[in-house]
Amino acid sequence: MSSDPAAQGPSVSAEAFGSCPLPVSHYDRVLLGHGSGGRLSADLVRRLFLPAFHNEALARLDDQAICSLAPHAAARIAFTTDSFVVRPIFFPGGDIGSLAVHGTVNDLAMGGAVPLFLSAAFILEEGLPIDDLHRVVTSMQHACVEAGVTLVTGDTKVVDRGKGDQIFITTSGVGVVPDGRTLSASRCRPGDRILVSGTIGDHGIAIMSVREGLAFETTLESDSASLAGLTETMLQACPDIHCMRDPTRGGVSSALLEIAAAAGVGMTLAESAIPVRAEVRGACEILGLDPLYVANEGKLLAIVPAEAVDGLLEVMRAHPLGRKAAVIGEVVADHAGMVVMRSLVGGTRVVTMLAGEQLPRIC
Amino acid sequence: MSSDPAAQGPSVSAEAFGSCPLPVSHYDRVLLGHGSGGRLSADLVRRLFLPAFHNEALARLDDQAICSLAPHAAARIAFTTDSFVVRPIFFPGGDIGSLAVHGTVNDLAMGGAVPLFLSAAFILEEGLPIDDLHRVVTSMQHACVEAGVTLVTGDTKVVDRGKGDQIFITTSGVGVVPDGRTLSASRCRPGDRILVSGTIGDHGIAIMSVREGLAFETTLESDSASLAGLTETMLQACPDIHCMRDPTRGGVSSALLEIAAAAGVGMTLAESAIPVRAEVRGACEILGLDPLYVANEGKLLAIVPAEAVDGLLEVMRAHPLGRKAAVIGEVVADHAGMVVMRSLVGGTRVVTMLAGEQLPRIC
Repeated sequence: MSSDPAAQGPSVSAEAFGSCPLPVSHYDRVLLGHGSGGRLSADLVRRLFLPAFHNEALARLDDQAICSLAPHAAARIAFTTDSFVVRPIFFPGGDIGSLAVHGTVNDLAMGGAVPLFLSAAFILEEGLPIDDLHRVVTSMQHACVEAGVTLVTGDTKVVDRGKGDQIFITTSGVGVVPDGRTLSASRCRPGDRILVSGTIGDHGIAIMSVREGLAFETTLESDSASLAGLTETMLQACPDIHCMRDPTRGGVSSALLEIAAAAGVGMTLAESAIPVRAEVRGACEILGLDPLYVANEGKLLAIVPAEAVDGLLEVMRAHPLGRKAAVIGEVVADHAGMVVMRSLVGGTRVVTMLAGEQLPRIC
Repeated sequence: MSSDPAAQGPSVSAEAFGSCPLPVSHYDRVLLGHGSGGRLSADLVRRLFLPAFHNEALARLDDQAICSLAPHAAARIAFTTDSFVVRPIFFPGGDIGSLAVHGTVNDLAMGGAVPLFLSAAFILEEGLPIDDLHRVVTSMQHACVEAGVTLVTGDTKVVDRGKGDQIFITTSGVGVVPDGRTLSASRCRPGDRILVSGTIGDHGIAIMSVREGLAFETTLESDSASLAGLTETMLQACPDIHCMRDPTRGGVSSALLEIAAAAGVGMTLAESAIPVRAEVRGACEILGLDPLYVANEGKLLAIVPAEAVDGLLEVMRAHPLGRKAAVIGEVVADHAGMVVMRSLVGGTRVVTMLAGEQLPRIC
């Protein structure tokens, strides 16, 4: 068992409870931006969910809850959930089914857990072609096999036409956290290095290119993938990784800002070090987007002790999903809760969290 | 650890995979009836989900998966998920929030588990009043406290107006199954007695009375409640209870037919023994419904050895949620997979599973 008191009991994940100090917004109805993973999401969580479900271990703000089964058993489990409402439901590089499996497996993996069991709950809109459902379910099954997880329980509801949108899938996952691993945003320390496992923005731009009808010389595919194999390799090379996070909705910027706020540290990034595919950079220019805010579904950020960097980069680059791994920045004691970027042209800028929705229904 | 081989590995629950022998229906689009918990639901599951996620332990068909954490840990956990799409979201006796907590806690309890942790994933429709969301979340929190579970992780997505319906909630739950407990439909044996914990049909009729504007002398309330306290009392009195099931969507008829099919046994019921409130009976007559098919959200069925009946009825009737507990039938060796009702007027009739939707979006 870990000696981190926050890891002893149930804790509440960052997905439920955002971590940035925010001005209270004034709204009396749910806005699209409340689902963005940005400031409006965090504000909703802070105003509604946090006060309601407050519990002692709330301080640990990660993508999965780590729960001790004591006094019933000695194990620590990781537990996570996500709803998927992406449109279109089929996109280059994946579909809503594989995305739902990958997303949940990855949230477990980011906690250092070995993913074991998945559940899937479907909300279907009346009139959905059975062939589409079949395609999605088949894709989920392939993703489960690939990730080494078993889908053990499920549910299906149907809503009347016009009260849903083809298919929504909520996956939840359970894994076991091996002894000696305690990954949490709160463990990040000044001097730690920030690694990314590969190019950023691929998922969001793949979705947007379909929606907007953008054509590239090569097909831009989502990076949707299970990261559990990569994290296991990394943790075996360096069990003391402080924190991992997959930068999904809200992109790298939201993920790092959440970690910085939870740990009470600052971060500096070097724009020149951040891997971005040329097509993604081009599409971002056309669409007026910043890759730092665009969703990824097969990439991870790792905050690691400086002395572990060389060993980690070596094992990451030897893995098919980490070939373009890079050090992109550093944790600093200054400007706690803030992320500062040294830009390509030599200046610096503060990375802020988007208020609302840059790319609605991206996952 | 149990000696039941089916309890050693992951198993897939009845919610995902229906259990009745069914003629293949011909449809190429999802129908409302596919969410009914009746024959169309079971058929969808059998055609799509069962072949995709087939695994060795599929034979155990219950409302929750019981998963061994071996070789990582010695514990057995119960794991379950359900989406809730009930309308209206507020109804006499509860709301979609308390219903989501109760439903998931109850699915864990029916497996003999001690419910521990819950997740909640919200799919909100743009424009939902924040006050409504606040009311739902507060109600969930009260239900969690009452059931002794901790909500440890969550997610929020927002879909554009007209692509959802106010609020959908998917709750998943994890519990621990104490050693020595193996509850499963497959354990039912001829000679076992069938108990119900109280009056049936209250939830479904409460919802329908709001939708249809029916007025009664007293307000008819949903029975939505956490049954974990009642099941724990029952299991302490009789650890050898063979099977428990909460008769939600599809009512008592679907639950018993699923168990009969899974166990390869028949069942006989005595209509006169089944507790039904006078208001529910009256509303069923007006609406043309049979209480046996109407959803319950705070009742359980238990299949128990005959010698345990007296002790169980005593502890059930001493519990606030079991005061009207009754023996309603018996497991028999004849007519395997069939449930036969001795009616009030002396005849017998075969209880069939409804094909489609009697009461759409009841949970």
